[in-house]
Amino acid sequence: MGANPRQMSIGMNILGLGGHSSAWRYGEVDPLSYLDIGYYQNIARISERGTLDAIFLADGPALAGDPGGGPSGRLEPTLVLTAIALATERIGVIATASTSYNDPYNLARRLGSLDHLSGGRAAWNIVTTAGDAAARNFGLTGAPVHDDRYGRAEEFVDIAVKLWDSWEDDAIIADRARGVFADRAKVHTIDHEGAHFAVRGPLNIPRSPQGRPVLVQAGSSEHGKALAARRADAVFTAQTTLEDGQAFYAEMKARAAAFGRDPDSLKIMPGLSTVIGSTEAEALARQAELDEIQGIEAQLGQVAQRLQLDRKHLKLDEELPWHLIGDALRVENGSRGFFDAQINLARRERLTVRQLAGRIRSGHRLVAGSPEQIADTLEEWFVNGAADGFNLMPDMFPSGAQVFVDHVVPILRRRGLFRTEYTGPTLRDHLGLQRPASQYAAVPHAVAA
Amino acid sequence: MGANPRQMSIGMNILGLGGHSSAWRYGEVDPLSYLDIGYYQNIARISERGTLDAIFLADGPALAGDPGGGPSGRLEPTLVLTAIALATERIGVIATASTSYNDPYNLARRLGSLDHLSGGRAAWNIVTTAGDAAARNFGLTGAPVHDDRYGRAEEFVDIAVKLWDSWEDDAIIADRARGVFADRAKVHTIDHEGAHFAVRGPLNIPRSPQGRPVLVQAGSSEHGKALAARRADAVFTAQTTLEDGQAFYAEMKARAAAFGRDPDSLKIMPGLSTVIGSTEAEALARQAELDEIQGIEAQLGQVAQRLQLDRKHLKLDEELPWHLIGDALRVENGSRGFFDAQINLARRERLTVRQLAGRIRSGHRLVAGSPEQIADTLEEWFVNGAADGFNLMPDMFPSGAQVFVDHVVPILRRRGLFRTEYTGPTLRDHLGLQRPASQYAAVPHAVAA
Repeated sequence: MGANPRQMSIGMNILGLGGHSSAWRYGEVDPLSYLDIGYYQNIARISERGTLDAIFLADGPALAGDPGGGPSGRLEPTLVLTAIALATERIGVIATASTSYNDPYNLARRLGSLDHLSGGRAAWNIVTTAGDAAARNFGLTGAPVHDDRYGRAEEFVDIAVKLWDSWEDDAIIADRARGVFADRAKVHTIDHEGAHFAVRGPLNIPRSPQGRPVLVQAGSSEHGKALAARRADAVFTAQTTLEDGQAFYAEMKARAAAFGRDPDSLKIMPGLSTVIGSTEAEALARQAELDEIQGIEAQLGQVAQRLQLDRKHLKLDEELPWHLIGDALRVENGSRGFFDAQINLARRERLTVRQLAGRIRSGHRLVAGSPEQIADTLEEWFVNGAADGFNLMPDMFPSGAQVFVDHVVPILRRRGLFRTEYTGPTLRDHLGLQRPASQYAAVPHAVAA
Repeated sequence: MGANPRQMSIGMNILGLGGHSSAWRYGEVDPLSYLDIGYYQNIARISERGTLDAIFLADGPALAGDPGGGPSGRLEPTLVLTAIALATERIGVIATASTSYNDPYNLARRLGSLDHLSGGRAAWNIVTTAGDAAARNFGLTGAPVHDDRYGRAEEFVDIAVKLWDSWEDDAIIADRARGVFADRAKVHTIDHEGAHFAVRGPLNIPRSPQGRPVLVQAGSSEHGKALAARRADAVFTAQTTLEDGQAFYAEMKARAAAFGRDPDSLKIMPGLSTVIGSTEAEALARQAELDEIQGIEAQLGQVAQRLQLDRKHLKLDEELPWHLIGDALRVENGSRGFFDAQINLARRERLTVRQLAGRIRSGHRLVAGSPEQIADTLEEWFVNGAADGFNLMPDMFPSGAQVFVDHVVPILRRRGLFRTEYTGPTLRDHLGLQRPASQYAAVPHAVAA
């Protein structure tokens, strides 16, 4: 970004019909819109009008919950993001995909194809997929244990990077007269042989506009943080208090530096669930309405699920049952990030279960307020070393995206915290990231000793 | 189709820059167009203007040849076909995908998603992927032997069908007031346990517009034919003489009937490579020009490769070295269909190697001629029991598609052999296929005995 003042990045997380579980019952759009590609394209166009960095899609290869209770499945993200890329010009497209339930060759190719067809706007949100539901769709009786998942993930990402690098940038000659399409010396087999995979390569598409799709990582366990520090361009994280956000931010920047990286090349982006009204009262009323549709029992069920506790141990107007809450061992097969985010908030602010339920949505910090208040909290985290950007989860779509773009973005722009126009065509440009050279390329400038 | 006279189906196979290996050197479009999504969308729009049934994309998870010799890779087909579906209204989209190098849950979901977002126009061309190049990208030292590939394919397709059926058509209630999204009794686990896979389900998307994507099969081995007869809605096949085409057609219809199916529910679609000129002389001149760019040596290399023979055994102006050509054993790890198609043509017409090379393109029968001549050969095969339709491989794009739509389609329409407009929104409608009921649905009308 050079001499420009530091500005934040903002991703829009299109989580079904909205981040609030009751969005589908509120009636803003047809509940079947989550199967309608035009629904996603519309939200993406709104987000691009607000010069947001990217559209983000979460994913897992299983029903995410009880199909009776709401739209819990999803169209496959790389297809939806293809549709979004073709309906937009600049906004990035971030696909979540699991290293536990894909093959590196197929996934690297699909993400590389997305980078080609979007003109350099693709990113991969690397997840290892906790939970048994997905495992049972892939021949396993339960999810592989955490260490195994991450061992595979580390190797998987290395292979993907090798495949994306396997065609050097200048491999294609396309000399029609001589009939030489590519310089064979610049198209490399990768000959990977590891503990989990053997992949020969090369990839069957040339290097993509960004060199490699942007790599995003969302795990908060020790292994997740190590992978992010070594490989990721951005980290999505669940942080519920400024103090914890600052600690996580400082830790991740230091971890990146320990790998010899420029700390600024790893962007920290906490999630933020939003309910926006023209006034705080209006926002709180909207939140109350959505909460009432959902009912307190369902909210408590979500708290219990993220803590991997039985609901019966939670008492509405008391604090969490601390004596029952263990440490990371408990979340071996769940999300460490969501676990920590809840515990930290409840502990720091000594919240009752009811209060805690009202402060978290989709596992992330919830802020209900006026556009001014939303802008304030983004600024507070951004200028105080807790965030380089945010992954937004509005309560419902499209209105939650629309009100953010029309009323929060202008405030951020006036404060000089957010771009007024895109400065380049690629997602790397939006995020202020370098385009990586291929690891197979000869050193471009050999300097005499 | 009811009382309408029988009409043919036509698919457009977008094979890189054209079916002729030298298309990229001819200069009609930029050689990098094979990475440009607009290139594919343009050909699809032309094809839809001609009311063609579908766009077809071949595929394999490896470089298809020497990257030095031409654009031998491909963007991932389900993404390209998503882009095509969104640029068109009616034309079908057929994605080739391998049962050897995918997981059934992921692929069923991607194809189901494509059926949703295209409004019911998706098809899957089921292949098992011969050759070692792909195998080596997936941890194997060579392709699984033929029998193993097909054992896995049979089970893979059964699982995909179960997953597509796992949500009954009327499973979604979307009752906002009561908060009931789906009728849980109509969303089924599939609990598949087989020799190759264990998959619990249900799929994480509801049943798609066509119930199931259309199933296409392209294998000509015994196992391939058995799978097609049991499961496929359409068979793509390489047939080079009318007699062989008729024999294959009759055999497949009989095989389908043996499974208790209406023979008309299995469509037989031979491939046809086309070079079209306004006169036969013009077509032959265009063919000669492309052949000369390629050179006879490269053509012989393709003949040798499809016969799995060393090039040195081929003598240009003699017949094939029959004493060296074995039977199916030789094509254990190649394409039985392409093998047979070449052998049959050379044997029946006693062709020299040079003549044979000039009569086959992309492994399929080549016809060079005027629009009238192209229409004649389509009609001949269609009315004489050798084809329900055709999968077209023009020599180059977009001109090869354009001339077919503008000059051949009108002739076929005048003869009453091809539709003048689409009769329905789905690919099943175009092909005259029924929409299948979910295997999990209760019998809709219980008839008293």
